[in-house]
Amino acid sequence: MPYRAPVADMLFTMTHAAGLEEGLYPDLGDGAAASILDEAAKMAEGVLAPLYRIGDREGATFANGTVTTATGWPDAYRRWTEGGWMGVTAPEAHGGMGLPHLLNAGCIEAWNGANMAFALAPLLSVGAIEALVAHGSEDLRRIYLDRVVSGEWAATMNLTEPQAGSDLAALRTRAERAPDGSYKITGQKIFITYGEHDLTPNILHLVLARLPDAPAGTRGISLFLVPKFLVREDGQRGAHNDLRCGGIEHKMGIHGSPTCTMIFGDDGGATGYLIGEENRGLPCMFTMMNNARLSVGLQGVGVAERATQTAIAFASERRQGRAPGASGEGMSPIVDHPDVRRMLLTMKATTSAARAICYMTAQALDQAHRGTTPEARRAGLERAGLLTPVAKAYATDTANEVASLGVQVHGGMGFIEETGAAQLMRDARIAGIYEGTNGIQAIDLVQRKLSLSGGAAFKAELDSMREVIARLQEQEDPRFGTMPRRLSEAVEALFEGSETLLEQLAEDPAVALAGATPYLRLFALARGGTALASLAMAENAESGTWLTQARFFAENVACAAPSLASTIAEGASCILAADAALAV
Amino acid sequence: MPYRAPVADMLFTMTHAAGLEEGLYPDLGDGAAASILDEAAKMAEGVLAPLYRIGDREGATFANGTVTTATGWPDAYRRWTEGGWMGVTAPEAHGGMGLPHLLNAGCIEAWNGANMAFALAPLLSVGAIEALVAHGSEDLRRIYLDRVVSGEWAATMNLTEPQAGSDLAALRTRAERAPDGSYKITGQKIFITYGEHDLTPNILHLVLARLPDAPAGTRGISLFLVPKFLVREDGQRGAHNDLRCGGIEHKMGIHGSPTCTMIFGDDGGATGYLIGEENRGLPCMFTMMNNARLSVGLQGVGVAERATQTAIAFASERRQGRAPGASGEGMSPIVDHPDVRRMLLTMKATTSAARAICYMTAQALDQAHRGTTPEARRAGLERAGLLTPVAKAYATDTANEVASLGVQVHGGMGFIEETGAAQLMRDARIAGIYEGTNGIQAIDLVQRKLSLSGGAAFKAELDSMREVIARLQEQEDPRFGTMPRRLSEAVEALFEGSETLLEQLAEDPAVALAGATPYLRLFALARGGTALASLAMAENAESGTWLTQARFFAENVACAAPSLASTIAEGASCILAADAALAV
Repeated sequence: MPYRAPVADMLFTMTHAAGLEEGLYPDLGDGAAASILDEAAKMAEGVLAPLYRIGDREGATFANGTVTTATGWPDAYRRWTEGGWMGVTAPEAHGGMGLPHLLNAGCIEAWNGANMAFALAPLLSVGAIEALVAHGSEDLRRIYLDRVVSGEWAATMNLTEPQAGSDLAALRTRAERAPDGSYKITGQKIFITYGEHDLTPNILHLVLARLPDAPAGTRGISLFLVPKFLVREDGQRGAHNDLRCGGIEHKMGIHGSPTCTMIFGDDGGATGYLIGEENRGLPCMFTMMNNARLSVGLQGVGVAERATQTAIAFASERRQGRAPGASGEGMSPIVDHPDVRRMLLTMKATTSAARAICYMTAQALDQAHRGTTPEARRAGLERAGLLTPVAKAYATDTANEVASLGVQVHGGMGFIEETGAAQLMRDARIAGIYEGTNGIQAIDLVQRKLSLSGGAAFKAELDSMREVIARLQEQEDPRFGTMPRRLSEAVEALFEGSETLLEQLAEDPAVALAGATPYLRLFALARGGTALASLAMAENAESGTWLTQARFFAENVACAAPSLASTIAEGASCILAADAALAV
Repeated sequence: MPYRAPVADMLFTMTHAAGLEEGLYPDLGDGAAASILDEAAKMAEGVLAPLYRIGDREGATFANGTVTTATGWPDAYRRWTEGGWMGVTAPEAHGGMGLPHLLNAGCIEAWNGANMAFALAPLLSVGAIEALVAHGSEDLRRIYLDRVVSGEWAATMNLTEPQAGSDLAALRTRAERAPDGSYKITGQKIFITYGEHDLTPNILHLVLARLPDAPAGTRGISLFLVPKFLVREDGQRGAHNDLRCGGIEHKMGIHGSPTCTMIFGDDGGATGYLIGEENRGLPCMFTMMNNARLSVGLQGVGVAERATQTAIAFASERRQGRAPGASGEGMSPIVDHPDVRRMLLTMKATTSAARAICYMTAQALDQAHRGTTPEARRAGLERAGLLTPVAKAYATDTANEVASLGVQVHGGMGFIEETGAAQLMRDARIAGIYEGTNGIQAIDLVQRKLSLSGGAAFKAELDSMREVIARLQEQEDPRFGTMPRRLSEAVEALFEGSETLLEQLAEDPAVALAGATPYLRLFALARGGTALASLAMAENAESGTWLTQARFFAENVACAAPSLASTIAEGASCILAADAALAV
């Protein structure tokens, strides 16, 4: 079935889990949010989704240094940018809409549900917009920013090198100061998403490199803007810069997205312009990275949503066997078989939980920018910091699990490429890896985020979960089943797990790091489960779909929380002592 | 790194979890088992493994009704059959080795670890051997059996039709009685593994079809042998039968294995010969299916083992960041990072647990055939029946999880096809679907196997797990950590879950079926965890690799057992009431 952007679910989640109507968003009142999401849905469904399978089958192709995207992609890119979608959150002064991240979260979800490989191109351009807005000089902004916001020129992020993946301290690309104030960049980058393509006449590469006199490690990295074509005095496209695409990767999924090797400085050095200060490139990059991490989480939500829609549609059509208690004659639609229902509800509820967490993170980002007091802005920033690794890792783990369940629901047909279920699984797989692997997210959560402001950010989050539990328990609604109890256990297991980790961090960080991944999952189960409960309580229906999801999540997914807490407490010792078992 | 068949681990598991030295196997004493496994390892590593990537890249190709396998496959098939490997468990009277299933379990694991797409060809031929031995007439056995055992001719299983996947009652392929005692077969089958290929000069199709006067449903299905080429009076290959391959599928993985649409009777009907009795085809098919299900479980073990080996090797070479407490200078191998260790141990320990369950199942099959008393044989048969769905589903779920973790350990490189990690994940995905989806396995376990002999088979299995727990607790070994407690909780959660399910089955089967999948997983955690504990207790080493795996499994994987029991008790109600949430 065709992808449908779930606008009603998006709005309900924004409103009842992420505070759309709680004062931060005067610009989204009076149905403005719904109108914009409806427009985004039309674009996603009408323009991007029809190219999803073509992108997989044709893929991006490389020949003679140039990359050709799949049939229809340049036209779709043109239509998408003409809609102004590149600039949803960009400043109005630079041609953007200046709208909040929360609203854009719904848009990003829709682009990725429609066509993940396509949506990667703008995802990285948006990162460049943010870096230029926050750190670009007046000159750089004047020359480049409007053109990225309009989509006329695209942008990329050039971080990874063969020896420097998760560990950026190891990067070797060099930058030398030129007499005119620019820099000469030399080096090789790999895994550069949309590093070369035919969607735009120019591509702006944001490149991490090291100056000759830079300190070792991450404090000696600078960020440069290195355009594919230099810009002349008159603002027009000039000479080709000294950089080229050396090839593209043959990947498991997202075939439509060219993953490039980029070579800078074959001929003496590519001209680059410093963004921010020398040796302060990493903080600049993290401006982009944090938002990109949330965007990757939203990719996960989009793909998981599409997999869920596809599986429910298939299960409603496909008939096999007779479901227990089936009336009438003949085979039942497989959606009536309890085990298939379990799979479908797992897909639906975990997707909704991931969406809620991502939207909450977007709301926190908005609070960081729009909060009326410095305290509110600071609290927003810290909450965004705390939730970002959870949003990224849980949503992409969920995408992997949900897309794999989607294949399973299709049975043998799921393994055949024509069905499309397999593509969703293959595409989704990268999202848990790039923009910081999910293991890196877990480590970030445990090592840096848990102790933000002496633990105040975490404490505030815990309090907001406990508040949901209190409301749940107060209602004494028999339709809730054991949800209040299971969610309460999950939240208290999170508290307990956090206490354990903080002690371990003080005594032996290795022990804490061994528990980082189960801790992130525990966090997501508690946060996602209570968010779904909020949605269920806001629902005005006897057999509510949010209630079903919330209860299912509590009784079948979040109930694993206590075992995660025990793993955090007990699991590290044999992990750290496993040398013999892990010998080659 | 190249695949290495883990012969030492296989033997240790056979001996200390599956009773290799406990009387059933006089033919495997004095190092015979080790010698044969060493030979199998040579064949797997030297002949099959080198063709693994080629099979994926080239795939099997279809043109003009014929299928061409990838470069080198016919030669490898010839060498493999010359080694006699098709007939490991086949009767000596028909050219087989007459060796036990337990030993062959190691061999099957090795073929699949080396090259899953290749190993599917013999997997199905072995099923045909079993069906012919058990149900074939004297004539059929005389003409065909030796030639399948020797590998001269291959065989297939033709079950699925477009409208009949999990539900064989719906199949429509027709068989009409011919005057000479043969039958005319007409119909279309899909998803026929190695339905057509260039490995052998003839292919024997075992086909399920329906006679004109057959009762409706599964009691009206008969099994036929339908050779691609008819056999002349003199035993030589004769005329082409009225059947053809209509095409092959474009699949997510196992590209080397042709998945065929088979069309029978374009020209009046393909000649087929009845196997067993009319309308009793399904029991005959289940003779093959049960063993094939164990073989698919072993596919899962093989692929998981290979993914684990590959990931450990990569993690030992690849350096990124500094691990906590690292000495010396420079980056640490990522195997030293606690979060990576967690992934690798998850891979290793769950693979070992799946292997132990599969080998236990094979031992039970041997007991069913070799037991010295009717009671022992019956107990073996029932234990095999009980464990088969667990072996199939848990081992293939494990393969999916482990192969996906393997991609994750490789980081960005894992998503690039050149690394090989992605192929393992793509290949593994089908194993949870074919030969009865893992949902079907769970339903089989709950509806048919749990109550075998009034629950005696389950009770015996539970007792054997409790015996392990008692030994664990007796030893009071501090190296065990919380393993005794966590495994005891898992076994008692299994007991509790079983009691719950039996009550639910009596009251409302739909409720029980909603809990079937978590129940199967609970069963596997308890059975796999206690099996690993047996291996750990049998190990004679201070920092034993089995102890590490057993303890890791208990403290990090099996600890989820109580939450699975609670899901079984509580989860069904909202699953069954989820109509609104699952509406299209």
